[in-house]
Amino acid sequence: MITLSDIQDAAERIAPYIRRTPLMEAVATGSKPTEAQLFLKLECLQATGSFKARGATNKLLTTSAEALSAGVVTASGGNHGLATARAAQMAGVTATIFVPTNVAPLKVEKLKRLGANVHIVGSIWNETNEHALDFADTTGAAYFHPFADPAVLAGQGTLALELLAENPDLDTVLIAIGGGGLITGMSVALKALKPSIRIIGIEPVGCPTFHASMAAGKVVRLPEVTTRVATMACGETDRGVFELSRHAIDEIVLVEDDEMVEAAQWLWFEFGLAADLSGAAAVAAMRQERITFNADQQVCALVCGAGTEGLAG
Amino acid sequence: MITLSDIQDAAERIAPYIRRTPLMEAVATGSKPTEAQLFLKLECLQATGSFKARGATNKLLTTSAEALSAGVVTASGGNHGLATARAAQMAGVTATIFVPTNVAPLKVEKLKRLGANVHIVGSIWNETNEHALDFADTTGAAYFHPFADPAVLAGQGTLALELLAENPDLDTVLIAIGGGGLITGMSVALKALKPSIRIIGIEPVGCPTFHASMAAGKVVRLPEVTTRVATMACGETDRGVFELSRHAIDEIVLVEDDEMVEAAQWLWFEFGLAADLSGAAAVAAMRQERITFNADQQVCALVCGAGTEGLAG
Repeated sequence: MITLSDIQDAAERIAPYIRRTPLMEAVATGSKPTEAQLFLKLECLQATGSFKARGATNKLLTTSAEALSAGVVTASGGNHGLATARAAQMAGVTATIFVPTNVAPLKVEKLKRLGANVHIVGSIWNETNEHALDFADTTGAAYFHPFADPAVLAGQGTLALELLAENPDLDTVLIAIGGGGLITGMSVALKALKPSIRIIGIEPVGCPTFHASMAAGKVVRLPEVTTRVATMACGETDRGVFELSRHAIDEIVLVEDDEMVEAAQWLWFEFGLAADLSGAAAVAAMRQERITFNADQQVCALVCGAGTEGLAG
Repeated sequence: MITLSDIQDAAERIAPYIRRTPLMEAVATGSKPTEAQLFLKLECLQATGSFKARGATNKLLTTSAEALSAGVVTASGGNHGLATARAAQMAGVTATIFVPTNVAPLKVEKLKRLGANVHIVGSIWNETNEHALDFADTTGAAYFHPFADPAVLAGQGTLALELLAENPDLDTVLIAIGGGGLITGMSVALKALKPSIRIIGIEPVGCPTFHASMAAGKVVRLPEVTTRVATMACGETDRGVFELSRHAIDEIVLVEDDEMVEAAQWLWFEFGLAADLSGAAAVAAMRQERITFNADQQVCALVCGAGTEGLAG
């Protein structure tokens, strides 16, 4: 679907419209989530509050004006919706965003501030997406798939270029998985540039999409999705996406929803960072010792999205 | 009171206990607060949620174990209290923190999590501080002054070393003023290392402590303090502090409380940054055009503290 050069092209294309987010070493904390030297990549400070701005912007810039003329539509746990709404705003066209019923209210509010038409429907992404696809068919709006789209994958992959430029010595990167677009885009770049790097995917216990598919050796549709983390509730990934990253992903680690909440609270208390639950997933995996590292390792946890889920505790 | 070498010594001393916070260029925003190239120094991500960890840690590390044996006490709008509580925790002694009645509830909660004894008393810092001084007299606890202490000033000044190392080309730095410790510590380092740099102080309309003192040519006690921003509600600065920075500060800009709220909301919407109102003050000054810059200028706004004041809107 994509190669390193697609990602490099995307990086150049989207550069004027996204931020180079900080890579901060996680030191001076009251409690340590790992023995390793830990870095936090703060994509929660990215435009629209997550890495999704990368993919949606690359999609926008590789779509013709004619194809955009009837507006843009997508289905999203929230973050890709925000990124798509901003892309539509940049193009001066209407965005229609379908979100599941467990979407964070904050994200609905931000969608409206970005001028999007918001439809709340479906309990998991795959259901919500049916409505978005119908809308695209009916209206002719350009459909921006959140992960199964080469332009989106290449855009998300730009995060890996930035990360390795900032710290070429990273041994391991922890990446939360929703539909799998981020881990797939990044893994193409990471393994091309640094074959030795370890890529760990994080999924909710209540939605182990990649975990189940890797065990089966093919894409499976989960019989049920029980996580309440909207941005990680994709019951079935795309075959092309899965084939691209399945051999690049070294391991999948599962975390409970409550463990992500606790990690988000830790990020807030220790760093003043407002992460959403997917943004806290990588930290949760380490804090719960679902995965451990030696002190001589350099590990990066992606804080991939912003939210207020950790602020209540 | 202090010189550049005191600040350099402090930087070396506190380095293992504080974070090098990111300097992020403020691009890809829906609205621009200035024509200038704008950088945000994210001290809201510092340990304890503000730059105050620098000064309090330097104070701790230059105080004898004997002097600390009866614990530590201070009066604070919140941020210096958190930093002092952490310092006490590092030393294994008790922290007693006096805060004014308009302190952010979040900061009280964080103080308690850091194991501090919290006393809420007084409507502005100067009143609150009387209680802290009485407590120090009675108990023998070591008093950590939030600004009128060379060790604290030198600690805050380390932020300037970091900033110029990250971007030596900065033309102007915007710094919020409470008691004046940050702007004074920083101005010593900034003017020593780059005499041409412009230093702009930001104060609330309802508490123009430095503004009034600079107009009078000497420290004045404000007849009343009407700002509700606890971290910027110091009705009278210290003479030594004032003399050290009065000629280094190029200008003082005043902002309304509501303008700081609006700026905090902007930081939250555009960046997912949870800034307190003092942390949003510099951005407020630009957004309200209380101060303007040309496009060829490189300007840094310190986002000096974390809080949730911008999240409601």
